[in-house]
Parts: sequence; structure tokens; C-alpha cells
Amino acid sequence: MSKLNDVLNLIDTDQDKAMERLFALLKIQSISTDSAFATECVKCADWLVDDLKSIGFDAMRYDTPGHPMVVAKLQAGGDKPHYLFYGHYDVQPVDPLELWNKPPFEPQLEDTPDGQVIRARGAADDKGQLMTFVEACRAWQKVNGSLPANITVFFEGEEESGSPSLIPFMQDNMDLLKADLAMVCDTSMWDKNTPAISTMLRGMVGEQFTITGPSLDLHSGMYGGPAINPIRVMNKILAGLHDDTGRITLDGFYDGVSEPSDAIKKQWAALNHDESSFLGDVGLSKPAGEDGYSVLEQIWSRPTFDVNGIWGGYTGEGFKTVLPSKASAKVSFRLVGEQDADKIQETFQRYVQDSLPPDCSVEFHSKDASGATVMPVDAPEFARAHAALSEEWENDAVYAGCGGSIPVVGHIKDILQMDSLLVGFGLDDDAIHSPNEKYSTKSFHKGTRSWARILDALAN
Amino acid sequence: MSKLNDVLNLIDTDQDKAMERLFALLKIQSISTDSAFATECVKCADWLVDDLKSIGFDAMRYDTPGHPMVVAKLQAGGDKPHYLFYGHYDVQPVDPLELWNKPPFEPQLEDTPDGQVIRARGAADDKGQLMTFVEACRAWQKVNGSLPANITVFFEGEEESGSPSLIPFMQDNMDLLKADLAMVCDTSMWDKNTPAISTMLRGMVGEQFTITGPSLDLHSGMYGGPAINPIRVMNKILAGLHDDTGRITLDGFYDGVSEPSDAIKKQWAALNHDESSFLGDVGLSKPAGEDGYSVLEQIWSRPTFDVNGIWGGYTGEGFKTVLPSKASAKVSFRLVGEQDADKIQETFQRYVQDSLPPDCSVEFHSKDASGATVMPVDAPEFARAHAALSEEWENDAVYAGCGGSIPVVGHIKDILQMDSLLVGFGLDDDAIHSPNEKYSTKSFHKGTRSWARILDALAN
Repeated sequence: MSKLNDVLNLIDTDQDKAMERLFALLKIQSISTDSAFATECVKCADWLVDDLKSIGFDAMRYDTPGHPMVVAKLQAGGDKPHYLFYGHYDVQPVDPLELWNKPPFEPQLEDTPDGQVIRARGAADDKGQLMTFVEACRAWQKVNGSLPANITVFFEGEEESGSPSLIPFMQDNMDLLKADLAMVCDTSMWDKNTPAISTMLRGMVGEQFTITGPSLDLHSGMYGGPAINPIRVMNKILAGLHDDTGRITLDGFYDGVSEPSDAIKKQWAALNHDESSFLGDVGLSKPAGEDGYSVLEQIWSRPTFDVNGIWGGYTGEGFKTVLPSKASAKVSFRLVGEQDADKIQETFQRYVQDSLPPDCSVEFHSKDASGATVMPVDAPEFARAHAALSEEWENDAVYAGCGGSIPVVGHIKDILQMDSLLVGFGLDDDAIHSPNEKYSTKSFHKGTRSWARILDALAN
Repeated sequence: MSKLNDVLNLIDTDQDKAMERLFALLKIQSISTDSAFATECVKCADWLVDDLKSIGFDAMRYDTPGHPMVVAKLQAGGDKPHYLFYGHYDVQPVDPLELWNKPPFEPQLEDTPDGQVIRARGAADDKGQLMTFVEACRAWQKVNGSLPANITVFFEGEEESGSPSLIPFMQDNMDLLKADLAMVCDTSMWDKNTPAISTMLRGMVGEQFTITGPSLDLHSGMYGGPAINPIRVMNKILAGLHDDTGRITLDGFYDGVSEPSDAIKKQWAALNHDESSFLGDVGLSKPAGEDGYSVLEQIWSRPTFDVNGIWGGYTGEGFKTVLPSKASAKVSFRLVGEQDADKIQETFQRYVQDSLPPDCSVEFHSKDASGATVMPVDAPEFARAHAALSEEWENDAVYAGCGGSIPVVGHIKDILQMDSLLVGFGLDDDAIHSPNEKYSTKSFHKGTRSWARILDALAN
């Protein structure tokens, strides 16, 4: 324990410098989905390589057809376990920029009623989170001249844009990445005082599609009536995907969806999830998902369909009585249990095709499809990580579901045959895909301490 | 007739200079719906004032809270009839700019399989058209030192953006604008060889509205399911406005819609409208309006609902799994017969309000609502204009319906108690609200000659 105590003490005294390092990382505009920021992504990867080298890692940037990967290794010795830590250095776009109170890439500390926060794009998703692990390694190495386990760090730069290079890279570099267990820091706490280990993740199917009707934009007076309006076609197709009870109408969509076991339901009920404050925090009062399920069930155990973006016709200032040639949408399904992502993608495309009236055509741009993931919570590593987390936060850690999708966890399982330990320190109000993203200073500090404890608990 | 012949001859020999004047007008970027172009609108009004003065008109720019009006008068003598000519100098926006083959405000002559055209935003709608009347006046004045009738010219600069200043200006300036009959050049020919007098115009109700759900953009993984998605709400509301036969479902919407008389139906049938080429020209094959009506009926005698623009969520490059706070649409109804525009606007807003699920709110930005207009085709002026047009084009003019809305015609009737003679030289493929707008050189030339003949026929 004395080694660990020294590590924890160093983390405490080094906190200002750790914050400076995080701020430097947050200033890099690594928006992966917009090709205008490609050089920023490279800059971000290089920054991480340099920082990992400064700790003692053997670190390298691996270029891909998209944004680069970073892989770094630091050996503790042959008899020690080997862990792969995964994080992503890319961030979400910042629009609508006018809703940010401060520039998104000029990180600042801000005092709020809930304590001090780091305000910046990527603060919580995922730069602040991945640096908790890096800082834990730095302190271990500095205090002891070695890490408690063999560590491979693996950072990608395309998590927010469908990870097009991830699967090929993992397939081509299995030996480089293979370890005993993966660790991922891209999830949330149960609440600001209660840490969590995520035990299930929803899968995702994403599609962008464009419906074309007339071959050019028309005047709605001259052609309104006989000319088909692709926005009208789009509205009808999208509106047809939910029935009146909130269920999704696609053929066979619920194949592979099962009810959680009674034990899990009981555990979830014991969490006493505060639905009204969860919804109230974002201006809502009534659950809008499937009838007959609690909010937690709607997020953790039920699949969804959402339109993430829609556009067509004239969207500028004033009016333009255009009957447009095209309408487009970005949509996504969140999947649970054993739902077959590829089959759902195919069924959705067929549904759209079959719904088209005469003279309309559709073009699809698919995002990778990935199924849901369930973790082996009975494995001994989970119990030890649970104890370490509970000790750091002086509060029993929760085994929680997670409504989000972290496709890499599925790929780690499929390609590298490894399970993942998902521990994260985000909070529900971090606004991670919204303006004014933040990460609690406490999450950053105690998150770093948590990883120091987890490494100690798992390796010894 | 000799006076008229001299006028027509001068129009022919002056054609190059008339084209130069039109090009100068087309170069002014008078996009009224976008406030960034406000000074261009003023410049455009000033150009028209100067040009009308050069002919001999007493012309003035009248500033309004929006874009300025132009009013100009040239007296022929007390015993002559008095005509008010209306046109608009503002133009539609040019987006999507990338679909233009040439810069929209650099007018050029272009040879096409259908003859020479003037390619520019506003070439047909309405700068080219209004200049046909101005050029006819110029030739009359030059040849004879006077016009055949007392003429008041009235140009507005807000026709493409809902004409917010039009009604107050007309109400405040009734004496200035009152005449015996209005003339408007903002409509189309029946086909490229057959002139038309438009005898009915559809009315319009326009609305922009925004639906708000959550108070901020959310992560669709963390909130997908329990959080209501305003795009989903918007899709359902818009999809609910048409039934499976293409009829509009709003309560009482068809009150005041009557079937055309047998005589009119017979006249329309005799036109042998080529539905397949009308639709084929814009990439379509099947009429998409109400079941049981011909294409001409769908445009001329049936009301419509169209979405002119829709937007919400992430619409940039790549994917962003956002569950947006807001979704917006611009919509419009085209009205016929005795449909009550104000009542329909109210019914639509109530329908949207009543369709909102819990936790959603809506905000409306209404455009002026105007009913349909039917012209008194039995009045003697119509027969004389018909004869003059038929003579110029060596082809019988058609009394045609018109699917578009020219709200000013309703205001001229309501406020100034005047009927309007609607003669225009546009063609269906002029792309007037689309990229690559054009106006046929023949329309410009023979249009000018047509007005010279109409003025002669009506005044003598």
C-alpha cells in the first residue's frame, strides 16, 4: 500500500501541472467529422505521442487513410498482467457555435454551484477522461520507476466520425494490441458522488440518406400539386418508423431484444433513479420512449430510432417558395441485447426503398453498424476494480447500463478476443455533444487517483 | 396604326441598347429576403428611378421600413385612360450557388436549342418582364413625344420576401396609385409561341415554425428513448397534413373550393396540355397531387400544401449522434377560389399546437396570408389586349389559370378597387426560383412589342 500512497500523493501535488497538460490538449481542434480539421487531428496525435514518450512509453503515431492512431507501450515485466487502455482524442463539432458562452477551444476553469469545472469541447469526451489514465501512469512511473502492469495505450482519432480506420487497423495490428483485458475511460459516473462500472452498451446503426424527386428546384406555385416534394416523402418515411406507443415499426426489429433478468431489474430499481430530475435537467418532464418502461429501462435495455439531422429546401432568412429537388436526413438506431446490426441496416434501407413514391430515388451513406455489448461482471477483475473505485470515492460503485454506443468495445471483443473494463468519470450534465461541454475538476483529479488504485488492485 | 408601326420599328432597332439596360439592372444583387443585400435593393430602386426619368417620367424612390418603392408618372392628357403598371425589382436568393453554371449576377446571352436566352438571377422574375413595359413606354415616348395613356409605374422590392411594406404603402398612397386598370407583367406564356392572359391566381399562406423539445442538444445515446426528439415531432405533424389520396387533412380546408365551370373545364381540355412533357422536363412522370385531377387542374384549380424548407440537428459533414433541441420548417399553402387565407392560417397553427406531445413548444413566424384572385375576363379591355397579343405573336392568346400567387393583385383589388390585366412572357422552364434562371431574348423583344400594341389597343 505504501507505493500506492506515494502515487496518490504525487497525483495530488502534481494537479496544477496535470491541468496545464490537459489544457494544452484541449486547445487542439481535433474535430474528426469535418475534413477541414484534419491537420489538427494529426497535431493532436503528435502531442499525445510526445507526452507518452515523456513518461517513458515507447510511443508512435500510426497514419491511416483517415486520422492517425497512437499506440504506446511501457513494460513492467513478463510476470505482470498486460492491459490495453483505449481512448479517443477526436472531438465532436462545435456548432451551433453561437450557443457557446466561451470559445470551445480555449479551455477555462469555471466555478459553478456544483463545483469547479473545465469548460471546453472534448473536456469530458474524451480528452479529460483519457488523461486520467495517462496521469495515473505518469505518477506511478515517477514514484516507482515502473508501472504495476504492462500497459499498451491505444488512442484513435475517428470515434466521433464512425471510426472508418479502426477495424482495418485492429485487424492489421492484432499482435501490437493484444493484452489480457482492455480498459476504456469514456463513460459516466452514476452520480457526482458514485462511481460506476458500465456493464452493457447499446449498439448503433447509422445512416445518412438523400431522397431526390424533381431534377431541379421548382417554383411551388408553378409546380405545387403535380410535382412530388421530397421533403414530404421524407417526412412520411420518418414518421412511419414509430407507432403510437413509441415502438419501432421495422419488420423484425425486436428480434434479439429480451427483458432484463429479474436480478438486474431489482438492482436497477434499487438505484432509485430520479426520473424527474434526470429529465428536468434538460427541460423535459415526461419519458418519450416506449410505453410501459422506466426511463432507465428506455436507455439501458430498449432500442431506439432517432433522427439526428434533417435538411432540405430553403433554410435561410426569409421565405422562398421553392419545391426542392432533394431532402436529406441523418438517422441512427441504438441497439440492445442480440439485435443484428447488419440486418437492421438492411431492413431500414429496404423500408425506405419500398416507401418511395413514383419518380423518387434514394441514396444511402452508411455508417458502421455495431451490435450491443454485455460485459462479464463475474470476472475477478471487475470485483477488484469495484473495490478500488468504492474506496477512492468512499461510496459503493454501481454496475450500470449505458445508453450510448462505444463500438470499439465490440471490436475489441470480436477482433482481439478481450473483454473491456469500462470506468469513466463523466456526469450526465457534461453536455458532451452540445455547446458548453465541461468536465468536473473533481472527476479529473479523483479519476486519475481511481486509475492509480485500479492498476494497483488488478496487478498485485 | 402608323404611330404604332413607328414604335414597333424603333423597338426593333433599339434592341441592343434595351439589352444593355436590362443587363445593368440584372447586375444589381437585389435579393430582398436576405438583409445583407439591403443596400443593393436601394441601388436597384435608384437605377429604376433614373431610367424612368430618362424617358420623361416624374419618378421618385419612396423609402419604407423595408426596401424602397418606386413610383413614376407620365401624363398623356386628361381624356386618356389611366393605367397602373406593377412590377418588382427584387429577386430570389441564389443558393445553392454551386449549381449555377455562370455567376447569377453577371448576365450573359447564351444560345440554346430553343433560341437565345438571357442567363441571370431575375432575368425572368421579374426584371426582364418589367423592362418589357418600360421599353415599350420609352419607344412610344421617343417616337410620339407622348404615351397613348396616362401611366403610373409602381415597382416594389419585397415581392420575394412577403411584401411587408406593400399594404401599408398602398393604404397610405391610394391617390398616388389609383388608376382605371392595373397591368402586371409577372406571369408566363402558354408555350413559347402562344401568349397568355392569366385569369386566376392562387393565394398563399406562408408559415415558418420551430418546435422545441429538450432545452439543449443532447447525446442520443445518453438520452435516446426518454427524451422527445423535435424532428420526430415535426415529421409526424407534417406527414399528417396529406391523406393517402393527396388531400389536405386540415379541418375545413376545402371550404370555398369549387369545381371549375364546365365551360372552363372544356377550354382547359382544348389546350391539350402535354402532361408528360411538362413533368418530364423536370425529371418526373406521374402527377403527385390529388387523385382524380389533371395536372392543369392540380395547378390551376386545386389548393396545395408544401414544405419549402426543413432543418434541425446536425447537417454538416460526417455523423453526429445528437438529439436536437429544435426543428424548424418553412411551409406554404396555395389557395384557390374563395378559401379564407386567414382562417386557414389560424387552423394550421391550431393543428400544430394540438399535435404537440408533452414538453414540446412551438413558435410561429407568419408570412402574409392572401386569398386567390379571379379576373373579370368579360371586361372589354381583356378582349382588346387579347387581340393585340394574338396579333403580335401571330397565334391566338390563351386565357390561362396560374398556379402561382401574386398577392399584390389581391391588394390592388381590395385597396385600390382595380382589376388587373396579367400578361407575361415567361416560359415554364425559366427556372425562376432555381439556379440558372433565364429569360428568352424573344420574350424580351416581343414582350416589349406586345405592350406597345396593348397600350395602343386599350387607349385608342
